[in-house]
Amino acid sequence: MVRGRVKGRYWATKRVATLPQGALLEVELENGSHIIAFDPLGCGDGEQVLITQGSVAAGYFDKIRAPVDALIIGSLDEVPPSRRR
Amino acid sequence: MVRGRVKGRYWATKRVATLPQGALLEVELENGSHIIAFDPLGCGDGEQVLITQGSVAAGYFDKIRAPVDALIIGSLDEVPPSRRR
Amino acid sequence: MVRGRVKGRYWATKRVATLPQGALLEVELENGSHIIAFDPLGCGDGEQVLITQGSVAAGYFDKIRAPVDALIIGSLDEVPPSRRR
Amino acid sequence: MVRGRVKGRYWATKRVATLPQGALLEVELENGSHIIAFDPLGCGDGEQVLITQGSVAAGYFDKIRAPVDALIIGSLDEVPPSRRR
Amino acid sequence: MVRGRVKGRYWATKRVATLPQGALLEVELENGSHIIAFDPLGCGDGEQVLITQGSVAAGYFDKIRAPVDALIIGSLDEVPPSRRR
Repeated sequence: MVRGRVKGRYWATKRVATLPQGALLEVELENGSHIIAFDPLGCGDGEQVLITQGSVAAGYFDKIRAPVDALIIGSLDEVPPSRRR
Repeated sequence: MVRGRVKGRYWATKRVATLPQGALLEVELENGSHIIAFDPLGCGDGEQVLITQGSVAAGYFDKIRAPVDALIIGSLDEVPPSRRR
Repeated sequence: MVRGRVKGRYWATKRVATLPQGALLEVELENGSHIIAFDPLGCGDGEQVLITQGSVAAGYFDKIRAPVDALIIGSLDEVPPSRRR
Repeated sequence: MVRGRVKGRYWATKRVATLPQGALLEVELENGSHIIAFDPLGCGDGEQVLITQGSVAAGYFDKIRAPVDALIIGSLDEVPPSRRR
Repeated sequence: MVRGRVKGRYWATKRVATLPQGALLEVELENGSHIIAFDPLGCGDGEQVLITQGSVAAGYFDKIRAPVDALIIGSLDEVPPSRRR
């Protein structure tokens, strides 16, 4: 998984029918690049999130074959690095 | 997913039989690299699109095993960044 | 998908039994990196080709589980950029 | 697979229900980038680990469709490079 | 697929039970990065090998769900570039 911070949201009115309704969030990764991830958790701007990618992300959706290759699977608790373990 | 802008179209007369008929668009990603994505939405040059990649893209095609690893799944609504959320 | 130009061919006499017979072509991608793709189309040196990657490439092979993660799925028609759409 | 060193641990109280309980470790790869991997082996800070990625990582989980795309599959024995073979 | 040269071997005594017994070789790719690949062919240091990645690599293992995302599928015959085709 990779982690990143939520930086905004996108809307796509024109879309394939199998793309689930729900938030498409822009997330900035550690290296400065951006990906757009489906968010089932209701995350907000600035939140630090955990993202899974590839077919694993699509497997989250139960009865449909969702064309989603990036999914927010958690919001990281903010703890000081010195107390991480 | 990643976003990019449509920059042109390719044709491949010589092709494997399982490649579906339809537009193969060149899309320039944020980092300046290019990928070629199958477009089921009829997008045009300059349009900002959302792309899913990998086996998830092939899963869009219902009865065939399409050798497609990049699919346009939406056209992003153009909203000013300040109003994104 | 990505596009690239055919730059040569490899042979592997010592190989796993499930690797299909057929051409293994070196392809130079736009960014200068190289990948080796299975070619079912009989492409030649200098030809500009379309490549699909990952499990989607292996899905092309019907009855075997071929360990192929890069497949040439088309040869791009050479058209001037100004006439691409 | 890639190798890296464990650099810390993350907690995510807010998470999707299908994310298995267990350690989410930050691992620094050879090139300096970081990924977060699920650790079924109880690895500690500084340990050099072997990581598998993608749907292969999720396949480790038996009865659930875990949204895990990076898994620690081994802890590398520390041997001097000169004695590696 | 990508090609690289074998640079050494790793051992992992502490490992998940589903990781098959067999050689885990370090392979240096063309761009200087390293990956660790499972080797079913008995390749030696300095040998130039062909590697497949992702779920395709795991598909090589027949009855188990092996957490292997990089597999050596061939050893490249050494031919001078000028005679490659």
